[in-house]
Amino acid sequence: MCDNKAIQIVDATLRDGGLVNDFYFDDALVKALYETNLRTGVNYMEFGYKASKRMFDPEKNGKWKYCNDEDVRAIVGENRTNLKIAVMADVGRCDFHEDVRSKNESPIDMIRVATYLDTIPGAVEMIEDAAGKGYEVSCNLMAISKAKESELRDALMTLAKTPASVLYVVDSFGALYPDHAKRLVTTFLEVASQYGKKVGMHAHNNMQLAFSNTMLAHELGATWLDGTYDSMGRGAGNCAMELLLGYLEKQGFSQYHMEQALPFIDQYMETLKKHGVVWGYDVQYLLTGLLNQHPRAAIRYTKEGRSDHGLFFNEIKNPTA
Amino acid sequence: MCDNKAIQIVDATLRDGGLVNDFYFDDALVKALYETNLRTGVNYMEFGYKASKRMFDPEKNGKWKYCNDEDVRAIVGENRTNLKIAVMADVGRCDFHEDVRSKNESPIDMIRVATYLDTIPGAVEMIEDAAGKGYEVSCNLMAISKAKESELRDALMTLAKTPASVLYVVDSFGALYPDHAKRLVTTFLEVASQYGKKVGMHAHNNMQLAFSNTMLAHELGATWLDGTYDSMGRGAGNCAMELLLGYLEKQGFSQYHMEQALPFIDQYMETLKKHGVVWGYDVQYLLTGLLNQHPRAAIRYTKEGRSDHGLFFNEIKNPTA
Repeated sequence: MCDNKAIQIVDATLRDGGLVNDFYFDDALVKALYETNLRTGVNYMEFGYKASKRMFDPEKNGKWKYCNDEDVRAIVGENRTNLKIAVMADVGRCDFHEDVRSKNESPIDMIRVATYLDTIPGAVEMIEDAAGKGYEVSCNLMAISKAKESELRDALMTLAKTPASVLYVVDSFGALYPDHAKRLVTTFLEVASQYGKKVGMHAHNNMQLAFSNTMLAHELGATWLDGTYDSMGRGAGNCAMELLLGYLEKQGFSQYHMEQALPFIDQYMETLKKHGVVWGYDVQYLLTGLLNQHPRAAIRYTKEGRSDHGLFFNEIKNPTA
Repeated sequence: MCDNKAIQIVDATLRDGGLVNDFYFDDALVKALYETNLRTGVNYMEFGYKASKRMFDPEKNGKWKYCNDEDVRAIVGENRTNLKIAVMADVGRCDFHEDVRSKNESPIDMIRVATYLDTIPGAVEMIEDAAGKGYEVSCNLMAISKAKESELRDALMTLAKTPASVLYVVDSFGALYPDHAKRLVTTFLEVASQYGKKVGMHAHNNMQLAFSNTMLAHELGATWLDGTYDSMGRGAGNCAMELLLGYLEKQGFSQYHMEQALPFIDQYMETLKKHGVVWGYDVQYLLTGLLNQHPRAAIRYTKEGRSDHGLFFNEIKNPTA
């Protein structure tokens, strides 16, 4: 189940990290990240979203919110490499009929369709559209820590019959303790394996468990693992790519090279931080994680520079008070 | 094995945190920490070391490096509470014949004897001395990630025959992946359970695994769990007390109250950080952890404000080059 070749590491730095800086990344950074991924042995680089320009004003977001084919191509050219290119498309927030063109016109290899459990029909439509246009497709089930067992099984059975080749556990709220993560991954694997699908893990670090839950998922048989360099991502950030690569190398996955990540982190991630871009674990993210809530209140707390976690915890425990 | 009453949470903030600020804590902080521990339900508060004044200049260290009985008593009075008081004593660095007085003259309840695997005879002598004076005693096996199975078993068999009631896995280098942590805790439990001893876990956060390894140890049957508020501790810091308490409360250990930790963190830990005291996860600690090395090189890197992790990694991989 866990043979070397089956593993697929996805770099989600631009996509989840873009949620922190409204997708304003310099081309130099994006190019350096692409080259870093070539050196570290990462399998997929997620460039950002295919977001609707009608719903999200292009004046207020960097170009990686939209991932126009020509913008991707300006970075990767014909991309004659082993690194594949992915983008994310959210159900209900993507004009996929127009914005996702035929694969043979695009440098993009994979569309990652992101959905909540209550928008599965929309996800199926997008998966079929993308697959029909020639893309690899995954389906990423967000806010999965809220899922009830029965509705999750129903959703997985529906998705298993689509052309999506990977079904992803997405711990949007960073709320999964290991036993919960284990139950979810096991359920995903049960359904996925019947239909020849793979299972992925996308973790958030609200309770400092993003890396350990990703290792756990891998041990159980999930083969698609997301990371971001220096953990860059919404709120508490993601599973740090350097932690993940270091671990996999030690486990004998000799195709990965953690050391090659270090110059990029030093040159680009440190610069973003110095310019005031903020992400990463802090106590407020533990608190929303504990309550199995979206991190938005913790993100606001962070932006406001508050230091009254006790009051904050009361606010989010009693949101109507 | 894991019944509620058996669990003992040890707050090591002053002791491991003291390694970061040379034990210069204001009395107001120490008093507030003591009161916080009373409210959170923590079982033991470790005040610091019983370090030799001949070996460590009292002009260069705060008083919690030495933990004179009268200094502890100035904080806790007669300590008529459920919170017990611990101090650590390192083999070869403690004048225990003079500095550890009879328990009936001291506010201290427990002596935690810290040893490396090659100083077990010295540890046995100190354990017997402390037990003879009336203290509870634990033995904390440092740098355990370096241990060979056979020498570890020999050491544990020797220690199991002493009056120490707890044997601690101490991941000084933050180098334990879950499978390694599991092997060690299991070995400790095998020996300890034969002799009616308990097992403890003291983790470091070099690879963001301090909390998850502590949960893992608890799941396996370790009942003594160390944490520090806001992770304060050497290098990458420790298992964050607030993560541990939040987890245990959710597991039904209703004697713990994470929320009560928040005011202390906001008022005191944040102040320390603002005054330039530095600890916590960063990439350099991952690198020493990966190499199963003492974090001293990473601590130096941090102090020097370097941002050349690639060069640093080469230095520590080839220390003689």
